[in-house]
Amino acid sequence: MTAAWLAELDTPALLLDRDRLTANLARMRRRLEDHGVTLRPHLKTAKSPAVARLAVGDGGPITVSTLREAEGFAAAGFADITYAVSITPARFARMARLLASGVRLTVVTDDVTTAEALVDFAARTGAGPRVLIEIDTGGRRAGVTPEDPRLLAIADRLTRAPALALDGVLTHAGHAYDAADTEAVARIAEAERAGVVRAAARLADAGHPVRVVSAGSTPTATHARHLDGVTEMRPGVYMFQDLQQFLLGSCAEADLALSVLATVIGHNRAAGKIVVDAGALALSKDRGAALRDPALGYGLVLDADGGPCPAGRLAVQELHQEHGLIPVADDADFAALAVGSRVRILPNHACITAAAFDHYRVVAADGTLETWPRFNGW
Amino acid sequence: MTAAWLAELDTPALLLDRDRLTANLARMRRRLEDHGVTLRPHLKTAKSPAVARLAVGDGGPITVSTLREAEGFAAAGFADITYAVSITPARFARMARLLASGVRLTVVTDDVTTAEALVDFAARTGAGPRVLIEIDTGGRRAGVTPEDPRLLAIADRLTRAPALALDGVLTHAGHAYDAADTEAVARIAEAERAGVVRAAARLADAGHPVRVVSAGSTPTATHARHLDGVTEMRPGVYMFQDLQQFLLGSCAEADLALSVLATVIGHNRAAGKIVVDAGALALSKDRGAALRDPALGYGLVLDADGGPCPAGRLAVQELHQEHGLIPVADDADFAALAVGSRVRILPNHACITAAAFDHYRVVAADGTLETWPRFNGW
Repeated sequence: MTAAWLAELDTPALLLDRDRLTANLARMRRRLEDHGVTLRPHLKTAKSPAVARLAVGDGGPITVSTLREAEGFAAAGFADITYAVSITPARFARMARLLASGVRLTVVTDDVTTAEALVDFAARTGAGPRVLIEIDTGGRRAGVTPEDPRLLAIADRLTRAPALALDGVLTHAGHAYDAADTEAVARIAEAERAGVVRAAARLADAGHPVRVVSAGSTPTATHARHLDGVTEMRPGVYMFQDLQQFLLGSCAEADLALSVLATVIGHNRAAGKIVVDAGALALSKDRGAALRDPALGYGLVLDADGGPCPAGRLAVQELHQEHGLIPVADDADFAALAVGSRVRILPNHACITAAAFDHYRVVAADGTLETWPRFNGW
Repeated sequence: MTAAWLAELDTPALLLDRDRLTANLARMRRRLEDHGVTLRPHLKTAKSPAVARLAVGDGGPITVSTLREAEGFAAAGFADITYAVSITPARFARMARLLASGVRLTVVTDDVTTAEALVDFAARTGAGPRVLIEIDTGGRRAGVTPEDPRLLAIADRLTRAPALALDGVLTHAGHAYDAADTEAVARIAEAERAGVVRAAARLADAGHPVRVVSAGSTPTATHARHLDGVTEMRPGVYMFQDLQQFLLGSCAEADLALSVLATVIGHNRAAGKIVVDAGALALSKDRGAALRDPALGYGLVLDADGGPCPAGRLAVQELHQEHGLIPVADDADFAALAVGSRVRILPNHACITAAAFDHYRVVAADGTLETWPRFNGW
């Protein structure tokens, strides 16, 4: 049905299955409704207003990872945006322009000096973002631990400019991606929840208002037993899912909505490899799922319509800039994937793979075919 | 001198040191002149007309890895272009448009069926690219081996349309990147040379004209003892160099012209890590050099001006989408890299890191500061 359109696309192309996307969006919405928690999806994966509208309707709430995303989503009408990467003084001017345009912008910090600079800036310019203090609940990336004395020091600084509003705390247990199994993800989800709630309680005990207790990733939002005390969750990759999430039990393989359409551009018979035009740039060198299951390589190969690969279960196992190499067993495999034929490749990590493309080719069972742009860069 | 400008740039930013670039370009030009071989640089790394003009002057000859590059360089006045990734029938229409615009376009194939399709297309439309047959000289990526009977079968097909011109053979010993030391690179360079010359001789013996015997990568162009029988070399990353090339002995560390300017956005004191805003998207997950020297991680940290890092020899050792993590030893290291300060990060693999950015910030010792765009995507 979409075969003719697919056959005409230049490859590599980033395909998004709209039916799977909408099912994934609905599933997470229901899950968080059941938990009584606000869904503030992270658009770092999709970077697309069309996807964001399907996820949360017009306007938000949403989460972003770059100011370019924030500016792009603001221009597209999203007015409630959390920029979930530590703000720094060099970004205050862009932050202020977003606020001046009417966006309800929330920024995060985990640093006393930055909090002081933010207070100075707010006092001087009147720019009034909402602020969350980032908490490290085990990811050992950004944030202060729930017990860190600086938590209260930062909160204390943030109350010194009337324009600013300290709104609460935020955490991201990114190490859930590396969990050994879904039971381990559930334990990490509970540590994330308990840690951020403990930090919120310390702020409240010190007399600070705590309106927002923000947590989450796709695995922890999926596997958390309960979310008591959390007010919002920020999953992102759940929209598309990927091989990594499949291995973590966040989804079924049939939920994977994102793939790279590639063309078979050669048969290296002497080396026993099929060559496709999706290389390191199109797929990314993220090993994600393959660290656990090497058979997944840099991506699992399907046929052009997303069905099983006619040559069996194959993966891209070697990447050069514009060449992907798929080891095959015999002549029958070469025959099943003739030069010029097309395949879909399911990526390890959708967020990273998608970033090589400035648009999606959106396919749907009803035959509609659309092109949706993405905000890349910074 | 450039410090004020650097301080104002949004980060992460892709910095290109013009003085190092021009020195790298001159060095390779001299080396290949000494060998009596044409330099047809691969612009898959730079994807920039400004860089291409510095490398080979106006017009070419150049090599590209995507049709988007070919179209972009053609629009910028480059008229002699080799598209060095196997052509497929789905790309014939774009190929024909390039030819119609006056570009002397060379395409490559290693496939009998594609050669037949190309002949049919040329006979039907008059589109007349030059064609090189790709040879596998040990890279086990694309190409037929020099001894493969299909070499002559492909050549035979390509002589059947008067519009087409079979010009010779092309190879790329990409496995030189994985060589253990420079002696091993030199051995691979000789195998690349000897293999492609052997293939050329087979074509000549069969009565085919062989005007082009094309080989090369940065390591093999740098370490080849001689290039007898080769007519052109296609190095690419030599323009910028990177940690991988440094480890291969292709350059000194002081030749590395490309870096990512990043801002320190946090101190995770509990985890002993400095957080910068160059993550997996800005640096790429290419392990390149780190596979040999784990201390290089996902990139080596310098100060904002490209001098030694004030906290000693540090590397980005962990990547999340927008966070890079640099393990540090003690409080002095945190003090040396305050939140808000800037660092430059030397990448493992310049080709892959650069692709995250749509432009270069070009810095030079004479104080000129420019922004040069890149052609990304396909």
